[in-house]
Amino acid sequence: MKLGRISVEGPDGEEARLVLVLAEEGRVVDLAVAERLRLERRGASREAARRLARALFPGSMTAAIGLGEEFLEGVERAAAADVGDASLPLGGVRWLAAVDPPVMRDCLAFEEHLKNASARLGRQVPDVFYEIPIYYKGNVGTLLGHEWEVPWPGYTQAMDYELELGFVVGKAGRDLVPEEALGHIFGVTIFNDFSARDIQGREMESGLGPAKGKDFATAVGPWVVTVDEVDLMGLEMVARVNGEEWSRGRSGAIMWRPEEIVAYVSWGEGLQVGELIGSGTVGRGCGLELGRVLRPGDEVELEVQGIGVLRNRLGQPEAVRWRPAPRQRSG
Amino acid sequence: MKLGRISVEGPDGEEARLVLVLAEEGRVVDLAVAERLRLERRGASREAARRLARALFPGSMTAAIGLGEEFLEGVERAAAADVGDASLPLGGVRWLAAVDPPVMRDCLAFEEHLKNASARLGRQVPDVFYEIPIYYKGNVGTLLGHEWEVPWPGYTQAMDYELELGFVVGKAGRDLVPEEALGHIFGVTIFNDFSARDIQGREMESGLGPAKGKDFATAVGPWVVTVDEVDLMGLEMVARVNGEEWSRGRSGAIMWRPEEIVAYVSWGEGLQVGELIGSGTVGRGCGLELGRVLRPGDEVELEVQGIGVLRNRLGQPEAVRWRPAPRQRSG
Repeated sequence: MKLGRISVEGPDGEEARLVLVLAEEGRVVDLAVAERLRLERRGASREAARRLARALFPGSMTAAIGLGEEFLEGVERAAAADVGDASLPLGGVRWLAAVDPPVMRDCLAFEEHLKNASARLGRQVPDVFYEIPIYYKGNVGTLLGHEWEVPWPGYTQAMDYELELGFVVGKAGRDLVPEEALGHIFGVTIFNDFSARDIQGREMESGLGPAKGKDFATAVGPWVVTVDEVDLMGLEMVARVNGEEWSRGRSGAIMWRPEEIVAYVSWGEGLQVGELIGSGTVGRGCGLELGRVLRPGDEVELEVQGIGVLRNRLGQPEAVRWRPAPRQRSG
Repeated sequence: MKLGRISVEGPDGEEARLVLVLAEEGRVVDLAVAERLRLERRGASREAARRLARALFPGSMTAAIGLGEEFLEGVERAAAADVGDASLPLGGVRWLAAVDPPVMRDCLAFEEHLKNASARLGRQVPDVFYEIPIYYKGNVGTLLGHEWEVPWPGYTQAMDYELELGFVVGKAGRDLVPEEALGHIFGVTIFNDFSARDIQGREMESGLGPAKGKDFATAVGPWVVTVDEVDLMGLEMVARVNGEEWSRGRSGAIMWRPEEIVAYVSWGEGLQVGELIGSGTVGRGCGLELGRVLRPGDEVELEVQGIGVLRNRLGQPEAVRWRPAPRQRSG
């Protein structure tokens, strides 16, 4: 099942809607509309049907997933009852980021990427990457949907993409073992961790991890595929820039299995419903590893087998209004 | 104005309520109750009054702050109309984390802390701390309120506290300069960034920043004080463990002014309403700097002039169910 989020114009401005994606049929089904129509056919008033339909299919993927089994059963029921009146053509919709997670982590779980990136920076891969699934935490406030333009902050001259999977958590849990964790993965999406390599490198000298180097933009989409429809360890992953293939890899090369990552995340703090966990960049899955950088206006396409294509174009560098004035080291 | 969040039992289980804190009078005012009573006195039905009151004063501080000027004016109006019927005794309430931010960042903006902590780890303070306000991003899913027990994850034997301020953002904005950023600070709270020093040190070798070392618990509270009532650069800060003073410092020693930090956060990505930004630890404001560690059952109190006291007791170390098996480095 492919589930996405789109934006439509309503009486109070743009609003998010959950859709079931029927890619082969070239259409999406607005789930709240399909459910409202189903309820109306069963005697509900328009207003009452709308209320219940929007409670079952809110605009937030996290809120919907939070309903547990009721959500996916509701999708099946609404889709089965739909006679086409809730459909929109796939080509014409405005996509939102496929998920709206409460927290986002991004691992570095492909050894080839670690080795290539470290070599470019003149370093060895630190031992700790082989001991635990290392991740940093991203900014959930700057997620971009499919076809969105990527902002180019004025502080960077070294823009890069990263070819990754994003695992979407389906239910809360704490201190899970991997066998349990597997059942907490709701689905998978494509994850483009746009990176400003110049400031990222400076920030990482602090030991506190990337901030401005990553937090300006992460593209997620075009939709989520439920975990029953994909083999997480058997996905071919490709990146193209302006139509030219730059990267190709396989998800199965990952050093930590998805359920090990999810179990580790749950340890001592708990998983949150709807949270998003990036796999880390597949080997040769970014410009840094290839000695290449992106330019303003470049179009980046990430394609993952069984999911689809996530496409974003880079914007123009923004003007700088202010920079912090360096401080003097005391003593 | 002091604003907090408490938990009360309702027909559907525990629910969060916003309160105005009248510390000198030993009581809090449940804002939605006060507003409902005001509306009922003006002829509203119970149900209609409840609906409007809960929309103005939801359980989420972020949602309330998102209402802009309407929120603080509403607090004043509800408080002025209150005749005591919406009051609860200060001593008896169950506090929630004072804020529920969409994203949390935590700076390292006090040079003395940087120097002391680096010296304990046998390092120099990296130059980048003097060039830009460095921060890491925390976990908004594990915020603790005043008087909550702090979980002790099974992976650590080196528990520590950190004495910090938390700045609460009042409105969105992007690419702000410091003079503008000042108007985006809603208030300030006390921030205890509990830290597992052993795993934090290992994680920081990766360059990706702390994760398990920080993400299990951050205490925030007991309430937020609006920025008009405090001088952010003139606050005395104290930490006590089991009643013994361990730390004392002043907010004015901070290397980056709060408005510089907020302006920097806004650069290239934007501020989010309700987000929380930690100041970083004041000099000598944690056990690491003092060569001391916390033990299970210890009580940590952070007191900040003009705000109040944030008190938390450490729980017992948790059992370990699973650890990741180390990987072999290839090649």
